Amino acid sequence: MSDFSIGVDLGGTNLRIAAVSSDGQLLEKITLSTKVALGPNHVITEMCDAIQRLSGKYEETGKFLGAGIGVPGIIDMQTGMLRKSANLPGFEDYPVRAEIERRLRARVVLENDANVAALGEQWLGAARGIANVAVVTLGTGIGGGIVIGGKIWHGMNGMAGEFGHVTVEPEGPPCGCGNRGCAERYASASAIVRMAQEAIASGEAPSFAQAASSDAEFGAKSIYNLAIQGDEPARRIFRTFGRYLGILLADLINVLNLDMYVLGGGVANAWDAYAPNMFEELRARSLVYAATAPPQEPVWGQPPSAVRAERSSAAAGSSTSPSLRTQTGARKTVITLALLGSDAGLYGAARAAVMVS
Amino acid sequence: MSDFSIGVDLGGTNLRIAAVSSDGQLLEKITLSTKVALGPNHVITEMCDAIQRLSGKYEETGKFLGAGIGVPGIIDMQTGMLRKSANLPGFEDYPVRAEIERRLRARVVLENDANVAALGEQWLGAARGIANVAVVTLGTGIGGGIVIGGKIWHGMNGMAGEFGHVTVEPEGPPCGCGNRGCAERYASASAIVRMAQEAIASGEAPSFAQAASSDAEFGAKSIYNLAIQGDEPARRIFRTFGRYLGILLADLINVLNLDMYVLGGGVANAWDAYAPNMFEELRARSLVYAATAPPQEPVWGQPPSAVRAERSSAAAGSSTSPSLRTQTGARKTVITLALLGSDAGLYGAARAAVMVS
Repeated sequence: MSDFSIGVDLGGTNLRIAAVSSDGQLLEKITLSTKVALGPNHVITEMCDAIQRLSGKYEETGKFLGAGIGVPGIIDMQTGMLRKSANLPGFEDYPVRAEIERRLRARVVLENDANVAALGEQWLGAARGIANVAVVTLGTGIGGGIVIGGKIWHGMNGMAGEFGHVTVEPEGPPCGCGNRGCAERYASASAIVRMAQEAIASGEAPSFAQAASSDAEFGAKSIYNLAIQGDEPARRIFRTFGRYLGILLADLINVLNLDMYVLGGGVANAWDAYAPNMFEELRARSLVYAATAPPQEPVWGQPPSAVRAERSSAAAGSSTSPSLRTQTGARKTVITLALLGSDAGLYGAARAAVMVS
Repeated sequence: MSDFSIGVDLGGTNLRIAAVSSDGQLLEKITLSTKVALGPNHVITEMCDAIQRLSGKYEETGKFLGAGIGVPGIIDMQTGMLRKSANLPGFEDYPVRAEIERRLRARVVLENDANVAALGEQWLGAARGIANVAVVTLGTGIGGGIVIGGKIWHGMNGMAGEFGHVTVEPEGPPCGCGNRGCAERYASASAIVRMAQEAIASGEAPSFAQAASSDAEFGAKSIYNLAIQGDEPARRIFRTFGRYLGILLADLINVLNLDMYVLGGGVANAWDAYAPNMFEELRARSLVYAATAPPQEPVWGQPPSAVRAERSSAAAGSSTSPSLRTQTGARKTVITLALLGSDAGLYGAARAAVMVS
């Protein structure tokens, strides 16, 4: 017997639904495409059908405790509606939570996708057993989530954790949010592409122009491949990336003094290309980090796969104290990679469904 | 009958001890000078004598619940010792908390001075009735404290709230912490003096040179006086101050999404000189602020005394909902001035003494 909840990752492209037991075992996962063009009613119907299929199936083995839905955008926690979502057009005026609750006749929790990703990593991933953690998701932009005492820190309006829009360069490039020099203008996939385009335009990076002409999917990954081959313009881009990610993290550490900062999202895996500069900035710019840094940081030449393997085995060995945290007995600030990939949000949404808020 | 605790503000210059009732009434305050040169043992003896005098006197009217000591510097919350304190030389190796507990035979809480100032403003000052608040203390440097759920947020090592060392200009002037372009290099009394000295040296501010030669106490206050008289170089300094304070606050709001941000410390009172630029940056740089800004911000021409009076009367009328917060019913981000002045830390220390941590 194992009670379970259902986590949903309702993205602009994919709609994923998973049944997860209370002790964190994945029971089953369904992956659909999100047919945004057919409107919210259609999408919600498909979602609810899948939730009901899973909840019916596993009710033979345990009690269904509720569903958590992670969505991109700003959520009004009181009304359970999306205030703003670039990836789910048409959902802003739709009573998402109320409609799902009506159909399922179950408790439903609506959460921001970056917040549930943070909760997932804290529950079952890199920050397992760590009560206070921030997760910085480096994707097209930068998403953020803060977990305090094992719970998502929503702030007053559910808008806490907007790490991507922390100012790291006051007169830097303009951002869609209205600010200039936001962190996500330097430390995201779209920032890498912007910097690469600027390098191509200025004629500084013939290697990029060549790669772009032969690679139909020329993007952040292509620049990373050039960087690890030693291409200087590509390495320069990742130095800039590391510098500004370091400034962002230094600010977060000085303000929050959390136990752990987890880097997730696709671009986080370029760790060996940006981490040395990131740590350099951190040590110089955060007195709190300098006072609490672990004796060894994973550096260039120690690719993320090695870091992952080390942390996976640590997590397997003990669910409460990853080895990087307590090497000297003193409490150290740990910066590390996420472990759950795109499943973090699914697990976190399932977790959010059963937490008292 | 009224139970009470004792709050202590152990500064580098003054040693203040106050008995405060559980419902926030000041019973009595003793002000001494801190004789740092005579060593920690002497200072602690004077402090404990005063605490015992007060606790003995008011034990006739209620139960003595404990003492809270606010000290400048970084505190090891586990051992109750000062890890580092620029203003209390000689205290680093002294078992401050243990020694006071031994002499008083009472529960003693040792706290960072910026943290207790934040707790004091949250308990009885500008943020009365507001559970989640950050206090930014603009003095010689910048101090910071975060209160979440009515309790000080210490972070992992008691080092949370280092707002003064958030990077606001990556290649700005060097800071003693090892960073460059820290917030306190632009938005503090010492920053105002630095910018004034630079203006004098460059010959851009004959008015400063003149004021400096006739005013033996030429400092931040003198520059403020010039600014409100319309002196352009002085106004420029406060525009810079407001700009970078705005960047700091925008970062805090984007990360934390708290209900209220309180500006305290002596320089905060120059509100009419820096607030317009501060709000301009806030609106441009924080999407969270832009979405939650109150319909009216106190602006240039509305001096801090007016803001204070308005907020005092609001606080007097209701202990739980200052008027600036709920003008439209929706939850707004409030930026406002501290109300308790240098007593904030005394009240906060007394409060910390009776809180379960």
